[in-house]
Amino acid sequence: MPDGRFDMNEKTTAELEKLRDLIDGVDQQLLLLLRKRLDLVAQVGAVKHSAGLPIYAPEREAAMLAKRRAEAETMGIQPQLIEDVLRRLMRESYLNEKDVGFKQVKEDLGKIVIVGGKGQLGQLFAQMFSLSGYEVHLLDKDDWQRAAAMFEGAGLVLVTVPIAVTCELIRDKLTQLPTDCILADLTSIKTAPMAAMLETHQGPVVGLHPMFGPDVGSFAKQVVVVCHGRQAQAYDWLLEQIKIWGARLVEAEAIKHDKAMQLVQAMRHFSTFVYGLNLCREQADMQSLLQFSSPIYRLELAMVGRLFAQSPELYADIIFAQKDSLKAISDYLANYAEALTVLESGNRDEFIRRFREVTQWFGDLAPQFQHESRAMLQSVNDMKSH
Amino acid sequence: MPDGRFDMNEKTTAELEKLRDLIDGVDQQLLLLLRKRLDLVAQVGAVKHSAGLPIYAPEREAAMLAKRRAEAETMGIQPQLIEDVLRRLMRESYLNEKDVGFKQVKEDLGKIVIVGGKGQLGQLFAQMFSLSGYEVHLLDKDDWQRAAAMFEGAGLVLVTVPIAVTCELIRDKLTQLPTDCILADLTSIKTAPMAAMLETHQGPVVGLHPMFGPDVGSFAKQVVVVCHGRQAQAYDWLLEQIKIWGARLVEAEAIKHDKAMQLVQAMRHFSTFVYGLNLCREQADMQSLLQFSSPIYRLELAMVGRLFAQSPELYADIIFAQKDSLKAISDYLANYAEALTVLESGNRDEFIRRFREVTQWFGDLAPQFQHESRAMLQSVNDMKSH
Repeated sequence: MPDGRFDMNEKTTAELEKLRDLIDGVDQQLLLLLRKRLDLVAQVGAVKHSAGLPIYAPEREAAMLAKRRAEAETMGIQPQLIEDVLRRLMRESYLNEKDVGFKQVKEDLGKIVIVGGKGQLGQLFAQMFSLSGYEVHLLDKDDWQRAAAMFEGAGLVLVTVPIAVTCELIRDKLTQLPTDCILADLTSIKTAPMAAMLETHQGPVVGLHPMFGPDVGSFAKQVVVVCHGRQAQAYDWLLEQIKIWGARLVEAEAIKHDKAMQLVQAMRHFSTFVYGLNLCREQADMQSLLQFSSPIYRLELAMVGRLFAQSPELYADIIFAQKDSLKAISDYLANYAEALTVLESGNRDEFIRRFREVTQWFGDLAPQFQHESRAMLQSVNDMKSH
Repeated sequence: MPDGRFDMNEKTTAELEKLRDLIDGVDQQLLLLLRKRLDLVAQVGAVKHSAGLPIYAPEREAAMLAKRRAEAETMGIQPQLIEDVLRRLMRESYLNEKDVGFKQVKEDLGKIVIVGGKGQLGQLFAQMFSLSGYEVHLLDKDDWQRAAAMFEGAGLVLVTVPIAVTCELIRDKLTQLPTDCILADLTSIKTAPMAAMLETHQGPVVGLHPMFGPDVGSFAKQVVVVCHGRQAQAYDWLLEQIKIWGARLVEAEAIKHDKAMQLVQAMRHFSTFVYGLNLCREQADMQSLLQFSSPIYRLELAMVGRLFAQSPELYADIIFAQKDSLKAISDYLANYAEALTVLESGNRDEFIRRFREVTQWFGDLAPQFQHESRAMLQSVNDMKSH
């Protein structure tokens, strides 16, 4: 083999074959163990279900992982390996929770009516409520002639319609709910819908914003923002119910929530939109971009591309919903233009000065993010198959 | 339990304890299996090492995963679960390859001199060459008085210095290499350094661009772009060597590579920089942003924050290196400004029309990216611990 080319003589082939058979055997055992573990965790789920305990128990999870990491270390296994494998297994177990259903916190509620129940998020909540034993009715745009009958005896009316029509719908159509019925919404802005609900309905009111898309398989570890409206004790069961599904509740004032969302949603969605538009206008050669792309850039392209696989109306609504978003978007443009002048003047030192200013502002978060993103990038690289 | 509050009676506690003991037992077995599998794959690595086979074999990997997926399905396990677990295990095995070292493709090469060898990327390549049995010398900025002696008998001189000084350094300092010595570089742009190398050195020349940061644990599945210069047969061994480390080589013309990099690097880095600057100027409340953040937004914030944990000089160099980058950056600004006017005019239909135009341009890639990013986001969510 003088030139170092790959060769595969018979001995090498036989050795590799033998080792691969042994690995096959290990993997069989691995599959059996995974099956066994999923079954045991399902039994834990069933016990929790009958006791009405939440499926996600952060402290228990952290304690278990710490123990496993220590055990791994004594065996010369990287602690992060067992942690990653177990986290993946836990995800699978959370997904399977749906098979046993969930504890019903409020048994004498009466009906739940989901307005906009045929949308994706409405369907997800309908499914979760049904799995928890509630009687769920869906009300969609064509069902308004049956609305009065549906609302009769309802214990919860949950609004999840496009953001552009939410307030109008609440004011026009939800004036005749039973006084003790809870009125709640899932809109991604909160100030205006909360005001509309409090004005229209005299009973309990609560605003919710699930910080995840309808394509999550499980509520476990997902965040739901809660804005309190009126008569909190009346909807306390609803918050407990969402916790049992595995979500983490974050309480917030509507105004503070909306301000954060301008930066999170409107500005970021808009930049991503322009990034896609820019690639399109430049007639970027996507195939060669992808061919060259490092994990980090593949991840970024994927985050841009995913936007355009979704409904333009949804994004238009989010971006057009808040007047203040326009300010956040313009501010970004102004900062971009100003930073570009630094570039155009060739002032490298000034660029570095600003960079340092931002680094300082991020403080400890910058290295923390670097650490976090490294784990993400490794996992993106794992997914590569060619 | 009339109000649905969590309760933990003794029976529940005992049942959970028992199940958790059983899970502990399964996890012990799991750790033993992981240890066993890592050892077997290490043996595969040793056999490959002595035969000079690459550590990453895409077809073998794909075939093995397909088999495991099928087996999982017969056991009622989601195929994606076993695939994800095995991919994570494979990553660990690739990392461990370093412990056995790598086949040396070219045994009679003579010395390798890495110019800029004390930088992070230089050190990574120095480590990989050493692990493959080569004699590696590092030449850093203070070592130029010893350069002539170092270059004597060198078979490969690899340049990895800051992009701003690369061409000048090549032209000034690398004029006296042995004629049969390979001159190569790792710069992230290729046209100008290639021209400088071809002009300065009469022997074999090749340009390389590793599409990953120095913090990768392994070359497995990483991309290295190759721009051919002169006398390809002389550096063929080098490309084979990099493949043995596990990387995938992508051949490209320097000009085409640089054009893609303007979009990939300069423009994207600059937008990310401005995004961080913007958060800083708006005095964004990062704690509440993070508290609210869904996996997708946490991921995006992490991608922004990670930039500012790195060297400002490095980014300044990348952004200032290419005149043409300025055009890509200005084009983005123009598209942003123009899209903003659509927003300001409140023209929702026009926004939707443009959105659809980009969706169409992305074609099949948009749903593919959505699918890919879903897997990434799930894995980000797995990492959450509170």
